[in-house]
Amino acid sequence: MKQLELIALPGLPMVQAGDDLAALVLAAGIALRPDDVLVVAQKVVSKAEGREVLLRDVAPSVRAEELARETGKDARIVELILQESVRVVRVRPNLIIVQHRLGHTMANAGIDQSNVTQEGDERALLLPVDPDASAAALSERLGCAVVISDSFGRAWRRGTVGVAIGCAGLPALVDLRGKPDLFGRELHVTLTGFADEIAAAAGLLMGQAAEGQPVVLLRGLRWSAPETPAAELVRPAQEDLFR
Amino acid sequence: MKQLELIALPGLPMVQAGDDLAALVLAAGIALRPDDVLVVAQKVVSKAEGREVLLRDVAPSVRAEELARETGKDARIVELILQESVRVVRVRPNLIIVQHRLGHTMANAGIDQSNVTQEGDERALLLPVDPDASAAALSERLGCAVVISDSFGRAWRRGTVGVAIGCAGLPALVDLRGKPDLFGRELHVTLTGFADEIAAAAGLLMGQAAEGQPVVLLRGLRWSAPETPAAELVRPAQEDLFR
Repeated sequence: MKQLELIALPGLPMVQAGDDLAALVLAAGIALRPDDVLVVAQKVVSKAEGREVLLRDVAPSVRAEELARETGKDARIVELILQESVRVVRVRPNLIIVQHRLGHTMANAGIDQSNVTQEGDERALLLPVDPDASAAALSERLGCAVVISDSFGRAWRRGTVGVAIGCAGLPALVDLRGKPDLFGRELHVTLTGFADEIAAAAGLLMGQAAEGQPVVLLRGLRWSAPETPAAELVRPAQEDLFR
Repeated sequence: MKQLELIALPGLPMVQAGDDLAALVLAAGIALRPDDVLVVAQKVVSKAEGREVLLRDVAPSVRAEELARETGKDARIVELILQESVRVVRVRPNLIIVQHRLGHTMANAGIDQSNVTQEGDERALLLPVDPDASAAALSERLGCAVVISDSFGRAWRRGTVGVAIGCAGLPALVDLRGKPDLFGRELHVTLTGFADEIAAAAGLLMGQAAEGQPVVLLRGLRWSAPETPAAELVRPAQEDLFR
């Protein structure tokens, strides 16, 4: 019987800039195995890597001020969104959909004000500089596969779902093209977003608010495809039908 | 410790038109609990509901013939895609992205030729007529929550992931708006695609080719929001920025 277990890691303390995230995970006391997958929320990776920005240090550009008026967003946040992006895709009240410098098309460049603002000290949290590299470093320390997850909206579906913005030790995509189906017929479109499905599964346990369970262990998964980074999940511009 | 189990149901036979899917699931011998979630692949629901179409019975329209030339697809399949859709969104070689009559924006109206074609007898498989109703009927018979899943591509990400096209006994969306985060700050965008994350998680065990494990049990999930159908996951036209 094929079976998977997902376990929300207990007892992770509030993560601070400079924290050794791998050590914090190991301190949770669960013995990790080489075929385990540890899913870590982007927020704690970004915090550990010091990607918090004090908003009082941000000077908005003219373009940021304009977009802030158009969207009703804080001009300093808009400035950070523009700095983190290569292209603005859509603009609506309180929403700027961009292509992030990492390639992901996403709302507000993934910049997060919730769960990071401290009393009287406004901050924003940027994505890790290189989430695939962050995942690789964690994977090496922990001896298991690692996925760094974020919550993305979708073009035609309501609600956010977990997706992979970094991974190591497993294939981001699994290509079943050419494997025969039950009748021996060749499959046509069977490239699956393996790391995205892992991130979505972990999202079920992470919660998004006061619960705060940013690390989920996934045990029992098998794969045979070679390791590829989450960057592979980004659809290249020439395949993008909705630019 | 929050924990989830995913179990691929063993021993489900090949499903035929007219089969009692609930009885086949119950025969697998796993005692289902009221807070279990059973994820069932669209394919087996469609097969049980007799949604297979013999291609020799399909007469392509002029428009289907034109689109078939443009895409290189079988004109009879194109005819079925058009019949199942309310709007053609994008057309490329071997790809027709449509808005399905159920509201979903998806490739080829979800019409599947793989795993259903028998020797010398070409068939296509349509989505269930009303997957939310199919889920509700299964849920009532099985005494647990039910999600009917399909694999969808994404606008800006490579690879398909499991999504919910029908559900019953659980909320399709979970709205955390207004719940305070760890610092008591109000969350802004926290509507999560709960049933989609469930479908994606199950996708990890379902495989897509010769494995053929179309029913996955998810045990240990908790929710408090009221039941809503998968139709709620479809973004209304007025919120669609990519029409």
